[in-house]
Amino acid sequence: MNRMAKKCLITGGAGFIGSHLARRLLSSGCEVTVLDNLFTGSKANIYDMLDNPRFTFLMHDVTQPFWGQFDEIYNLACPASPIHYQRNPVETIKVSFLGMMNTLELALKTRARVFHTSTSEVYGDPEVHPQPEKYWGHVNTIGPRSCYDEGKRAAESLCADYTRQYGMDIRMIRIFNTYGPAMHPHDGRVVSNFIVQALKGKDITLYGDGNQSRSFQYVDDLLDAIESYMCLPEEKVRAFFSAHGMDFPVLNIGNPAEFTIRELAAMTLELIPGTGSKLVYHPLPKDDPKRRRPDITMAKELLGWEPRVTLDRGLPKTIDYFRELLSR
Amino acid sequence: MNRMAKKCLITGGAGFIGSHLARRLLSSGCEVTVLDNLFTGSKANIYDMLDNPRFTFLMHDVTQPFWGQFDEIYNLACPASPIHYQRNPVETIKVSFLGMMNTLELALKTRARVFHTSTSEVYGDPEVHPQPEKYWGHVNTIGPRSCYDEGKRAAESLCADYTRQYGMDIRMIRIFNTYGPAMHPHDGRVVSNFIVQALKGKDITLYGDGNQSRSFQYVDDLLDAIESYMCLPEEKVRAFFSAHGMDFPVLNIGNPAEFTIRELAAMTLELIPGTGSKLVYHPLPKDDPKRRRPDITMAKELLGWEPRVTLDRGLPKTIDYFRELLSR
Repeated sequence: MNRMAKKCLITGGAGFIGSHLARRLLSSGCEVTVLDNLFTGSKANIYDMLDNPRFTFLMHDVTQPFWGQFDEIYNLACPASPIHYQRNPVETIKVSFLGMMNTLELALKTRARVFHTSTSEVYGDPEVHPQPEKYWGHVNTIGPRSCYDEGKRAAESLCADYTRQYGMDIRMIRIFNTYGPAMHPHDGRVVSNFIVQALKGKDITLYGDGNQSRSFQYVDDLLDAIESYMCLPEEKVRAFFSAHGMDFPVLNIGNPAEFTIRELAAMTLELIPGTGSKLVYHPLPKDDPKRRRPDITMAKELLGWEPRVTLDRGLPKTIDYFRELLSR
Repeated sequence: MNRMAKKCLITGGAGFIGSHLARRLLSSGCEVTVLDNLFTGSKANIYDMLDNPRFTFLMHDVTQPFWGQFDEIYNLACPASPIHYQRNPVETIKVSFLGMMNTLELALKTRARVFHTSTSEVYGDPEVHPQPEKYWGHVNTIGPRSCYDEGKRAAESLCADYTRQYGMDIRMIRIFNTYGPAMHPHDGRVVSNFIVQALKGKDITLYGDGNQSRSFQYVDDLLDAIESYMCLPEEKVRAFFSAHGMDFPVLNIGNPAEFTIRELAAMTLELIPGTGSKLVYHPLPKDDPKRRRPDITMAKELLGWEPRVTLDRGLPKTIDYFRELLSR
């Protein structure tokens, strides 16, 4: 899609998903500013864009206000893996809430369209399966994951409140488990964990009995969804959600194909043969969600979108990325 | 209890519960500073304390940082009735989150003990009845009540995160429906609504069929609980919750006696005879919780506390207050 001269800001744009999004927006003709404090994001993720005259990197922390004139603001800033967000829980919830607030304040002043990446974590340990957008979730307010889960839930409320109160154009998605090149190698997520462990010939660590299932979305599918969603006219988005009895636009974006953790481990070992890695089992951490799978009916209907990259096609590309990274 | 010379700060101290708490702490020998922006609180609520040399009023908004050296900080600031908190949803969620954050930052710097008033609203529209502290709740992140509910849930997470990360001494309660003198006459809450309507000879408005039940706690019972809770040694609090498998102290404080809204209306009309008021029924607002009742087992065990003021004793005192207020 050609969107010449649109000025876009991406908070968290040096992270895994943010850096892919920056590249995608640049190739659509946009001017892109990436704002990142480089806590979990990295300069290496955006290195290839630095010499693009339509690209700007702004080192800044979203918990502090920021300024600039943009047509679209994409709010992606937040440590997203337990290993990162539990390192400094107070900072995590601040990033989620204050980052969202600062994004919305800037967008309100400058009339920018806002895109917010929420997460399947707002569903917590769900009691409904698969999860539709109308499911309210099942989250512990004071548990070890709450800094992330409740921070993200409050950010959603902020989006709905700003929309309700100021008539802003805010579009939200809840991202389910996503993988691909540029993932952080030490974020403790299951895909990167397994690949890095296998590539290093270390044992593959499974938590619990490994029969808990997850859905894995390749990052390109996510980008397709974001792009189509943000290109829709405001009236169309409003009319669609209103027809579905929702007064705020939110879509699940994920791959509904389910795999058990054990299956993922097997597939990884198959793609990285001769490593000598064995499967070892550890106890399940507290409040770890047992099962999560997106109901993507709404996204299909609104965007004509559904994931196209199957795990057996996405996994090799991700393995190639990590192989290259580890060989540096 | 004599707690001579303790320096206490109460955010929201000119509100309904805050002003009662200020009076209670003064009578225990404490020095009391009330911080309030007077949005829903009022100078009239604290007028009787203004000439007390141990009392200070500080007009300030909790969304902005504040300073001072205190032994105990009581965080009560937040518009608490739907009619107030939905007037400016963005401000409501900011008060909840930023007010909590500013309270905790000050307490961290000055090593104050923190008391936070959370709410039964964190349970949302509960699917478990009665609600124990371990119940995770059932809340819509993007509904019209979410500015309050999710703001309060995020504030709980902040408390847990600061405790976990900095080893602070933070004690939280979840307050269930509370009534008594100094309630805001126009806050749209059912007790004040019914009394004011009856005293003015207007019709009594019920939402839904009036068979939804509520528990009503008289404010003096709440104050008893707060005082005993805050007087306990830190080790005792930690040991108690830890023995119950909870790594953060939170107690339900409310009156488990249930009345239907219809019963409350009947009781009010009985106590205010000859008004000519009739019962009229309106549709139930969106996301209105159907039923909520505290499980107070934990509070009983830790504090030896339980509510003592029954509705037929608390209601007349509240009616007297409103009668006096309306005659001014």
